[in-house]
Amino acid sequence: MVEYQQGAGLDRIFKALADPTRRAILRALTRSPATINEIARPFAVSLNAISKHVMVLERAGLLRREVQGREHHCRIDPRPLREADAWLRGA
Amino acid sequence: MVEYQQGAGLDRIFKALADPTRRAILRALTRSPATINEIARPFAVSLNAISKHVMVLERAGLLRREVQGREHHCRIDPRPLREADAWLRGA
Repeated sequence: MVEYQQGAGLDRIFKALADPTRRAILRALTRSPATINEIARPFAVSLNAISKHVMVLERAGLLRREVQGREHHCRIDPRPLREADAWLRGA
Repeated sequence: MVEYQQGAGLDRIFKALADPTRRAILRALTRSPATINEIARPFAVSLNAISKHVMVLERAGLLRREVQGREHHCRIDPRPLREADAWLRGA
């Protein structure tokens, strides 16, 4: 589990969300969990670029990764989204 | 009025929110509009630093500024927050 502190967590969460590719990855993972290859398929960028985006999302706690052999299975963690939402609604 | 496109707008909005001082400024402006000097008062940073944060918020459309003589009156514009919230709820 990626731990995050309240303030620093929000910094990381909002920064992770400030990119259209990362937002599209999250949207796709909302529909179903996916491997990095599956995540990358619809995008016209390198697998390496997608891996970096996935890492940013993971560090923000928005994505959980489970390694099975050579495959990295990713799924969304909705809790940081709820934290961001709670902040927005209090603002 | 600061115009912003849907995607680029969300990039700017989330990036503007990824900083604790900018979030605190927005929170304060939710309670009441304020001049830049009033905004800066509770913060242990320079007026110049606060001005830069205000500019980032303004460019993201989150803050509106009205210049009256030498005073810059700032108030929050809640529409980009609602846009960010709509995205979060759809994610």
